[in-house]
Amino acid sequence: MYTLTTFRWVPPFVVGYVRDLRVRWALEEAGLPYQLRLIGPEDQPTPAYRQQQPFGQIPVLQDGAQTLFESGAILLHLGASSEALLPSDAGGRTHATEWAFAALNSVEPHVANLAELDAFAQGEAWAIERRPALEEMALKRLAALDTWLAGRDYLSGRFTVADILMTSVLRLLDDSGLVTRFPALSAYVARCTARPAFKKALADQVALYAPAQATA
Amino acid sequence: MYTLTTFRWVPPFVVGYVRDLRVRWALEEAGLPYQLRLIGPEDQPTPAYRQQQPFGQIPVLQDGAQTLFESGAILLHLGASSEALLPSDAGGRTHATEWAFAALNSVEPHVANLAELDAFAQGEAWAIERRPALEEMALKRLAALDTWLAGRDYLSGRFTVADILMTSVLRLLDDSGLVTRFPALSAYVARCTARPAFKKALADQVALYAPAQATA
Repeated sequence: MYTLTTFRWVPPFVVGYVRDLRVRWALEEAGLPYQLRLIGPEDQPTPAYRQQQPFGQIPVLQDGAQTLFESGAILLHLGASSEALLPSDAGGRTHATEWAFAALNSVEPHVANLAELDAFAQGEAWAIERRPALEEMALKRLAALDTWLAGRDYLSGRFTVADILMTSVLRLLDDSGLVTRFPALSAYVARCTARPAFKKALADQVALYAPAQATA
Repeated sequence: MYTLTTFRWVPPFVVGYVRDLRVRWALEEAGLPYQLRLIGPEDQPTPAYRQQQPFGQIPVLQDGAQTLFESGAILLHLGASSEALLPSDAGGRTHATEWAFAALNSVEPHVANLAELDAFAQGEAWAIERRPALEEMALKRLAALDTWLAGRDYLSGRFTVADILMTSVLRLLDDSGLVTRFPALSAYVARCTARPAFKKALADQVALYAPAQATA
């Protein structure tokens, strides 16, 4: 049995976007049951929690006696025991690993800078001056990704954990509408988020934080 | 024989910090000989190069018939064939993988935002207003890392590719002096950059771009 650590409470506007979703989605794809461990701001700075997550963040995954942090590492770890998440041949694994790092290091930083500005700083003087450059940088990455995905269903030939990570990153731009400018990229996000495992993971996260909304 | 792709030319202020250094360092630690393939801005947008590096960036590593992008994936790939870079047991590998992702996804984005502001936007109105928040975010990550490294020589028990990635990320703050505020972190960076493989990799990069400086 896996135990996934996430927050007990989050502000309403991030419901559906909390970073445990990446791990929930992978566990659903692999058909692996899991339980939740819920933490609050009082747990994040404790030495005991920092032993498991040195930056005090979520998610953390416990797999028996092993405790893991960093969603990229957690997903590659789950992939090692499930063909549904990662091919078992070395070449296929390497390609998925390349795209896992690409999602988290080449795409997410730029996407997150723009999404955070829009969420937290709209109207501030620095944000008005800075936004065009951040949008340009994000669009450059999206355009490259759109070119790569033209004629491809998934990043590395078949669905892998890299697609879970990349889709999760691209969803940070949901409110901006930027992804819809790119046909191959939009189709890719639609394809990935149409997967039953994504829908189940999303519904479960929403049900935790906004039970009324989930049952409405 | 490995072939490492990097830029033919870079502006003087980034010499010693070009991202091929991470791969050079790993190859030196493992004692693996390599040759360079040098590219210019005319190569970066070509479909042929985008097949190898979808974002048109460097580094790219060719290992026989296999071509890899993303420094994190390249280093884990090299680690799979060298005990000097990664332990051969599954638990040890998982820990190093966690820290590889932590370097590139939990630390680098914040460090890079601050370093880029200092390099490219000092004095601009948005930068003056925004810098304190970016510095605070970077310091938060550095403090967590300093706590983790107290009493530890390396991130995950022994030297691994994760230390190459983390040190490379922390060096982006060289000009800011921020790392020197943290004793365990400063000692860690000094320990890693004192390694002969780092010195050789750095000297080779400097020799490529600034031959006069290297022999001075």
